[in-house]
Amino acid sequence: MSGISSAGPQPADLWPEVQPDAARRLMLAGVESFARRGYHATTTRDIAATAGMSPAALYVHFPSKAALLFAISRSGHEQVLTLAQQAVDEAADPATAVRDLVERFTAWHARRHTIARVVQYELEALPEQQYGVVASLRKDIERLVRDVVERGCADGLFTVGDAGTAARAVLSLGVDVARWYTDRSRLTPEELGSEYGDLVLRMLGAATTPGS
Amino acid sequence: MSGISSAGPQPADLWPEVQPDAARRLMLAGVESFARRGYHATTTRDIAATAGMSPAALYVHFPSKAALLFAISRSGHEQVLTLAQQAVDEAADPATAVRDLVERFTAWHARRHTIARVVQYELEALPEQQYGVVASLRKDIERLVRDVVERGCADGLFTVGDAGTAARAVLSLGVDVARWYTDRSRLTPEELGSEYGDLVLRMLGAATTPGS
Repeated sequence: MSGISSAGPQPADLWPEVQPDAARRLMLAGVESFARRGYHATTTRDIAATAGMSPAALYVHFPSKAALLFAISRSGHEQVLTLAQQAVDEAADPATAVRDLVERFTAWHARRHTIARVVQYELEALPEQQYGVVASLRKDIERLVRDVVERGCADGLFTVGDAGTAARAVLSLGVDVARWYTDRSRLTPEELGSEYGDLVLRMLGAATTPGS
Repeated sequence: MSGISSAGPQPADLWPEVQPDAARRLMLAGVESFARRGYHATTTRDIAATAGMSPAALYVHFPSKAALLFAISRSGHEQVLTLAQQAVDEAADPATAVRDLVERFTAWHARRHTIARVVQYELEALPEQQYGVVASLRKDIERLVRDVVERGCADGLFTVGDAGTAARAVLSLGVDVARWYTDRSRLTPEELGSEYGDLVLRMLGAATTPGS
């Protein structure tokens, strides 16, 4: 169970913005360790061993286990915020924006399901200040979705009882993919994203389902 | 952070089928400990202390930490299967069945959010045989929902692309409530269940939304 799998995604693909490669390898080792045993049951020694490094080498890049969790959590939230913002910016109307956002958001949580589990389920282990940074990113993501749902309602494209609850349901559906999706799931991340795009547009009362 | 809260739900309300009360108190202490630190970082000593009992007293009721997790997990799944089955049995048509099922399923995951987190997120810590028992209950729940979605499609009440994916989305939406719901959430468990009932019927392409 130890060591980073050579078959799975490689650290440079997961965190292209992080340098050097040793830091990325530690982040992947952290993800695998936290996902397997939980944050609190994992030691920096476990993580260093999974990365094939010494505990001292870990501290060169991350001053603590909490700092490593923060790097994983912040990066995950930033990636999701970026893909959601791009979907909204590139779309001609709120219905297309919601479809594209759900497709990309769902596919991300399927493709990156192990990272996403750590990002979504270990939040409460973050120290207060770091938690605040991540909570602010989460608010940005929620506001983006609520705004596009409200614009769709104002344009007469959507009909929802409560935009806040509907926006939360849209995100919730995508987040929960991380809990149950595995590499053996029947649909690919993109196929699942496409199905969920249809379901969400109907959930929002969209009369037509525009192509993406 | 230790000790069972006197303000929250009491063990006898959570597990009326479990006897004696000491076993129920240990289950609640297990839920609180696993939710706070994760299964692997929790010791039987921690759980006994939270319940105000000795480790030896814990072993009278549960031979191991895994046996305690299994009792929590099996009971949670049985409660959910029962409420889902009742919703289907009592309904006159698939649309009413889905609405009532989603209302009760969502409200359960909101009201019992701490138990539900342990039930949903610590599954993989179960030993193989106990995992099999719980996996079988999960299959029963999924089959129940898929069958009612398929019946609704056959009756012309619902229109979905893929009944299996739609059924999973229905359950997924309710399960994820356990992740984000807190006692400070804006909607009560019943209000949230009602909103989600509307959203799900639309997601399934139901032409009308019957009252529950």
